[in-house]
Amino acid sequence: MTFIDKLRSRWQSADSLLCVGLDPDPTRFPAHLRGRDDAIFAFCAAIADATAAYACAFKPQVAYFASARAEDQLESLIAHLQRSHPQVPVVLDAKRGDIGATAGHYAREAFERYGADAVTLSPFMGRDSIEPFMAYADRGIFVLCRTSNPGGDDLQMLEVDGERLYERVARLVAGNWNAGGQLGLVVGATYPAELARVRALVGELPLLVPGIGAQGGDVQASVHAGRTADGTGMLINSSRAILYAGSGENFAEAAASAARHTRDEINRHRRR
Amino acid sequence: MTFIDKLRSRWQSADSLLCVGLDPDPTRFPAHLRGRDDAIFAFCAAIADATAAYACAFKPQVAYFASARAEDQLESLIAHLQRSHPQVPVVLDAKRGDIGATAGHYAREAFERYGADAVTLSPFMGRDSIEPFMAYADRGIFVLCRTSNPGGDDLQMLEVDGERLYERVARLVAGNWNAGGQLGLVVGATYPAELARVRALVGELPLLVPGIGAQGGDVQASVHAGRTADGTGMLINSSRAILYAGSGENFAEAAASAARHTRDEINRHRRR
Repeated sequence: MTFIDKLRSRWQSADSLLCVGLDPDPTRFPAHLRGRDDAIFAFCAAIADATAAYACAFKPQVAYFASARAEDQLESLIAHLQRSHPQVPVVLDAKRGDIGATAGHYAREAFERYGADAVTLSPFMGRDSIEPFMAYADRGIFVLCRTSNPGGDDLQMLEVDGERLYERVARLVAGNWNAGGQLGLVVGATYPAELARVRALVGELPLLVPGIGAQGGDVQASVHAGRTADGTGMLINSSRAILYAGSGENFAEAAASAARHTRDEINRHRRR
Repeated sequence: MTFIDKLRSRWQSADSLLCVGLDPDPTRFPAHLRGRDDAIFAFCAAIADATAAYACAFKPQVAYFASARAEDQLESLIAHLQRSHPQVPVVLDAKRGDIGATAGHYAREAFERYGADAVTLSPFMGRDSIEPFMAYADRGIFVLCRTSNPGGDDLQMLEVDGERLYERVARLVAGNWNAGGQLGLVVGATYPAELARVRALVGELPLLVPGIGAQGGDVQASVHAGRTADGTGMLINSSRAILYAGSGENFAEAAASAARHTRDEINRHRRR
């Protein structure tokens, strides 16, 4: 089963577009976890187990593991996700971008070492920087297109031949870069008009949409801008608002409640 | 001492613009190293010790360590470089690009965990994706500008307001992004005309130049295009041609010979 098939199947079976972002910050962990050697694994696994029912995908962010020398815990976490929640695809948020043999090593990191179903990549170095990842035919790739931060304007909004750079990236990725049908785009929720523009350009391509919750993106506007005709097509990511919904021993229940609430809010708007 | 000061000092004291790229591929290691648990460290440390006299910088590439689950060996390697060759700056080739708290975690990875003097980053997400790295005032940052691969054309050669995207990146990075004087650019040796154009746009900014040797870039053309008025300003990277100059027990001596030869070839062209 390819990543795209797994994702489509999960959208239907879970009736959810919510992607649970796993950005573990140990300074915000509940007190009872803090002393443990495997605190990062234990925190993320508990969050994932509690929120899986409401999730169309999990998205661990490599940087949080790398800064804490916790690659081993990221390996254990993804192994746990694949074993306990095999129907929920795992998107490794790595935003890698390199060429040739080096890109091949990053692909091996994401897909063989960590066993992710999909990865995020930067388009800046061009199509041949994506190809070593496409060689894994059953995996998916989300290419950065329009990011949710203010500085996203610096390059992405530049005008090239009558369109914006992010529009060109969207057309390239949905067009001749996507020979294997493995690609999607990352488009921030903070710019709904541009999310709608991307959807208009790319047909049914999956869109990974960060920026709701802590970053201020509006759920209704994002869903209306980004959904496909059948009301799917999006992975709407929430990280901090779910991970840190509670701060005590019941943090996982609080996360589940926040995830259910967000899934339901998304679903209300999907159907209108 | 800042990264830029350390680099300028090293250009003078070593009389070298050669950057030794550390891209360890265990399938190409000499047979006597292959069984060792610390083969990656041992290989890179031996290469570095043998080539340090000819190097203005070392550039370990994270992907090769990450695909091999060898982050611990990368930590040990950079600690060894800083202890044994403290006058040679270490550029961690990571090409990270993310925003906010996540970028902060990648900065901590590069500068605190690994103790690198400088890092490579992608410009795609804009200035605020660089700022968490600039918060480390004594470190340096090389931003991707014009890359040495064929796909580099896909975005970097697009025309924006009468200039190419790579020219815009060069002007931004040399201009208002560079408040702390910490920035440089990555410009491939495979396009000497564009290297000359970047030099014309950015004054004395340091340029990290991959692509000579295995990738086919011409040393003479690159040096003439990229040097500053005083004949410095460049870190001309060679990886495979040095690392795999020999394949037997004398691999380090072969690497030293290749590094000395490349440094000398660069120096011949610098002064003409």
